[in-house]
Amino acid sequence: MDSRFRGVFPPVVTALDADGNLDETSFERSINRMIDAGVNGLFVLGSSGEVAFSTDERRRQIIEAAVRIIDHRVPLLVGCIDTETKRVIEHARVAQALGADAIVATAPFYALGGQAEIERHFRLIHEAVDLPLFAYDIPVCVHTKLQADMLIRLGLDGVLTGVKDSSNDDVSFRFLVDSNKRAGHPLVLLTGQEVVVDGAYMAGADGSVPGLANVEASAYVRMWQAYENGDWSTVRKEQDFLADLMRIVLVPQGVQGYAAGVGAFKTAMALLGIFDTNQMPEPVLPLRGENVERIASVLKQAGLELKRNVEEVSASAHIHTL
Amino acid sequence: MDSRFRGVFPPVVTALDADGNLDETSFERSINRMIDAGVNGLFVLGSSGEVAFSTDERRRQIIEAAVRIIDHRVPLLVGCIDTETKRVIEHARVAQALGADAIVATAPFYALGGQAEIERHFRLIHEAVDLPLFAYDIPVCVHTKLQADMLIRLGLDGVLTGVKDSSNDDVSFRFLVDSNKRAGHPLVLLTGQEVVVDGAYMAGADGSVPGLANVEASAYVRMWQAYENGDWSTVRKEQDFLADLMRIVLVPQGVQGYAAGVGAFKTAMALLGIFDTNQMPEPVLPLRGENVERIASVLKQAGLELKRNVEEVSASAHIHTL
Amino acid sequence: MDSRFRGVFPPVVTALDADGNLDETSFERSINRMIDAGVNGLFVLGSSGEVAFSTDERRRQIIEAAVRIIDHRVPLLVGCIDTETKRVIEHARVAQALGADAIVATAPFYALGGQAEIERHFRLIHEAVDLPLFAYDIPVCVHTKLQADMLIRLGLDGVLTGVKDSSNDDVSFRFLVDSNKRAGHPLVLLTGQEVVVDGAYMAGADGSVPGLANVEASAYVRMWQAYENGDWSTVRKEQDFLADLMRIVLVPQGVQGYAAGVGAFKTAMALLGIFDTNQMPEPVLPLRGENVERIASVLKQAGLELKRNVEEVSASAHIHTL
Amino acid sequence: MDSRFRGVFPPVVTALDADGNLDETSFERSINRMIDAGVNGLFVLGSSGEVAFSTDERRRQIIEAAVRIIDHRVPLLVGCIDTETKRVIEHARVAQALGADAIVATAPFYALGGQAEIERHFRLIHEAVDLPLFAYDIPVCVHTKLQADMLIRLGLDGVLTGVKDSSNDDVSFRFLVDSNKRAGHPLVLLTGQEVVVDGAYMAGADGSVPGLANVEASAYVRMWQAYENGDWSTVRKEQDFLADLMRIVLVPQGVQGYAAGVGAFKTAMALLGIFDTNQMPEPVLPLRGENVERIASVLKQAGLELKRNVEEVSASAHIHTL
Repeated sequence: MDSRFRGVFPPVVTALDADGNLDETSFERSINRMIDAGVNGLFVLGSSGEVAFSTDERRRQIIEAAVRIIDHRVPLLVGCIDTETKRVIEHARVAQALGADAIVATAPFYALGGQAEIERHFRLIHEAVDLPLFAYDIPVCVHTKLQADMLIRLGLDGVLTGVKDSSNDDVSFRFLVDSNKRAGHPLVLLTGQEVVVDGAYMAGADGSVPGLANVEASAYVRMWQAYENGDWSTVRKEQDFLADLMRIVLVPQGVQGYAAGVGAFKTAMALLGIFDTNQMPEPVLPLRGENVERIASVLKQAGLELKRNVEEVSASAHIHTL
Repeated sequence: MDSRFRGVFPPVVTALDADGNLDETSFERSINRMIDAGVNGLFVLGSSGEVAFSTDERRRQIIEAAVRIIDHRVPLLVGCIDTETKRVIEHARVAQALGADAIVATAPFYALGGQAEIERHFRLIHEAVDLPLFAYDIPVCVHTKLQADMLIRLGLDGVLTGVKDSSNDDVSFRFLVDSNKRAGHPLVLLTGQEVVVDGAYMAGADGSVPGLANVEASAYVRMWQAYENGDWSTVRKEQDFLADLMRIVLVPQGVQGYAAGVGAFKTAMALLGIFDTNQMPEPVLPLRGENVERIASVLKQAGLELKRNVEEVSASAHIHTL
Repeated sequence: MDSRFRGVFPPVVTALDADGNLDETSFERSINRMIDAGVNGLFVLGSSGEVAFSTDERRRQIIEAAVRIIDHRVPLLVGCIDTETKRVIEHARVAQALGADAIVATAPFYALGGQAEIERHFRLIHEAVDLPLFAYDIPVCVHTKLQADMLIRLGLDGVLTGVKDSSNDDVSFRFLVDSNKRAGHPLVLLTGQEVVVDGAYMAGADGSVPGLANVEASAYVRMWQAYENGDWSTVRKEQDFLADLMRIVLVPQGVQGYAAGVGAFKTAMALLGIFDTNQMPEPVLPLRGENVERIASVLKQAGLELKRNVEEVSASAHIHTL
Repeated sequence: MDSRFRGVFPPVVTALDADGNLDETSFERSINRMIDAGVNGLFVLGSSGEVAFSTDERRRQIIEAAVRIIDHRVPLLVGCIDTETKRVIEHARVAQALGADAIVATAPFYALGGQAEIERHFRLIHEAVDLPLFAYDIPVCVHTKLQADMLIRLGLDGVLTGVKDSSNDDVSFRFLVDSNKRAGHPLVLLTGQEVVVDGAYMAGADGSVPGLANVEASAYVRMWQAYENGDWSTVRKEQDFLADLMRIVLVPQGVQGYAAGVGAFKTAMALLGIFDTNQMPEPVLPLRGENVERIASVLKQAGLELKRNVEEVSASAHIHTL
């Protein structure tokens, strides 16, 4: 196992200004805040990093900014997410050229295939790009689940360095951890969850990739350290606090999916003064009014101090009228 | 919360003889073994209790046998599982007449509906039958997920006593536990998992309903007691042991679903001398030969002592030739 | 192929009085109306015949009433729909004893299995009951699709007489028709659709099982006769009329699934004076007010003459307050 | 309705050489063959045109080649398929600059959203690019279904010119056709099916987009002309022939999805001498040996004349060893 990749690796939410451009100032503020909190690495261009919404130029901007800001303080993982192998390899080569420390790829999507194509996909990416490769298991987006035996085989063959598991299938994750242990622990296994990280640690995860760490990284760092020390009461206490906070994604009404989830993260970050706006990438609209109010209320209940009020945040983003 | 229903409540696997009849001797041996191990209650006619395969007469036999064998030593929950409300109420009335302590019902299935019909379904069952009612959340079988806000409302209204969560959605379960706590803990929340019970306990579950307890109940009881004592290292150690053991459901080849899952439980129980046969209900065939061998191997690796060999178990069940 | 089962076989919607009992008078009126229109047979206790909502006693009442009313004028198919084999066989034996001419069974549901269990399921039913057996392919309810090669094999082996295809997968149906033809046409292939029966006839279907025929059977009979005569313009014209009429299931608002679909059929039948009430089986509520109005409007646009007004129909059913 | 887009619009399969480069000679041969057969237009970079596998550079090559080869003989539709709006708009601007006559876009995919985001997506594309826009309804790839009322609204607002329906939901398509007719026929409605085009024509489709036309375009053209003439017997006869031929996608064994479907098209085209190789895009492997034999057998049964034998075609593609 490559121990550089153990611990807390937040998927970095992308900061936009009201025109929809990358807001490097807010982006830097957020990244520094997470590094200062003690995260073990950062993951840009993940699902919550709006990779699917980002043009190739935008992806390049995000990587360049992250490389510059992070400046080797922690490892940088870059999501190279696209429909099929050759497109992914193009992204991976750009990421490598720009200074990524590792790349992250999902199973192919859009076209229909089977496990044989998925395995060949990862082997081809590994052959093409000389960087540690993480498999990103996210069936809710790509509509296939990565099979444990394939992942272990790719780990033993040196193709995969690790797995980011966002499958929301804790039973499979448990068996994957066990299989990995039996195989000599070739893979770094990171859970992509926010509110059941405690369970993943009980199972033996090597770390976590929680989107909520963009809002509150310290508690995830404390939970990780408690796990390393075998202090399960603290693990549980921190997870309880974070689960309360994660309700920000449940309270928005009249929206769904990305608009509610990443929309809530960005809104919380704007309320906390981390981001200047809660602008979302088209065609997703930013949260406003009562939905911002609901999120503010959760933050306050969790004891966080708001730097801006509901009206300011509601006015921070621009909605293009069609 | 009704504290009678906290703790470990194994879903009782049904013992069949080689003719497919209920094998009361094996059934009694298994139930006594679990009660002796210290389980807090038992649940017959659940999904792994082959309720879907059981005629009304067979359901009656199972309840009568369970009532007689248990003899009030622990509470008896009875699955009243059928497609729609009136059929469920019929089963529930039989269960009540025969001595059940609580009944368990899923959302309606087969016909298509929405949350409104599901809520009305539970309210009608509660109105018809004067027994504690558990909602059984098992989307893999009924293809709808029970919504947390509905469950809490039904708990506060006294309709539901608790929930058996077999949704394999640990994130939703985490939020359900939190919502229940905020609402004053009206519901007993039991996880239906086997290998991530530790995570459910970290989340605050009130107990578990693990099918694997038919094979090995003691470790689940020890895990529960450790949880009650805040001894998380023991919780984790017991879960590790049980996750290893649960690989019996992963090793069978050429079969899937019920044939592999409950098929493995019955085969392990036959190898351990608990059941006389590993007979399955039609149209499911019993495991034989190499699949029995694979399960025996997992049991031995886990340190369990086999009472019968692979050949004996393979010959114990009858396959009707068509 | 058993030619008794070619043509139009409406799935008979069940008439309830305001107390939820079987309304034999309305049931008789509806059955006679369809036989008078020239249907080739009738199918009771299908999905739209509320089999999933019907207790065993209710199922028996429906079969007895249908046998009495039909009195051998056309063949009677009876749905023997339940979770697994032994339960289905019990229903099938009752149906046979009461005078069914054929039985209809789905794949097993609730418990998870594979094609091996499905094939054994049909073989066991055939072995147990000496009546023509139809496989009912309805993945929206049972969540598995019947594979064409298995169906053809069961047809050639004399296990299956035919298939009622409600899979809403016209491509698979097309290939099934072709495979059946190549195999010597062992199976009677009936489509369970309402608005694409013309396409199924183009593909070579042996008949149809349209729920909408409860509202308007004559047009389905005319479409069938036109198909038999190779008069495709008339086939198309009748289908156009029926597709317009079928919008009754699209117009209800605030309801979904069974409540909208069969709810609209019953409401239309009440407006047309066929049924005395539009009472639905619990936990489904009858349509009222504006939804009845919307259905009445579609019927009028299609040129049908209403016998009762919206208020009368809205008041015809009883909603039990919880 | 824009009548330029009525008729048969084959989705053009992409020709690769054994190195995986675009094989313009084969591509030209295939396009000319289809235009000579009388198709009404062509659609490049659809799902079967391997859009998901094609880098931006490859997409550009394909469009340029198609524009050059077609040379305005028929309209050229270009698939601009990517995860979210801004990426799609980039592709659309390239397509416009290179000479496309219309563009085709799916719902957003990968990130989770709702109908609101889908509608905004199409409106933003329309605003950005001054070309007729077709919505491509393909839930098997993008995992959302386009709602009929939204499509009609976008048609009436001048956002959408038409819909390519590959939803394999003939009931919804039927209702969409009817709604379109009631709304004054704003949309050109094309079915993306191969074997149930007859049913789509009965329903009133404005044309078809059949992948199989790459193998055999003439019969689709004859079917369209017969439909225009109301000659339903010929429609049916041609569809019967084509459904027989389409079995090429069913006979490959040990492969699934794209490898079987487009793999069979390319293999048939190589056997017929249209393509030089049956090379597939990575990570999909070309069909070989017995699978080529099976396809050859279907072609011969359908009466087509093979230009190359199984061994030649099996050797035509290169498999890169990992």
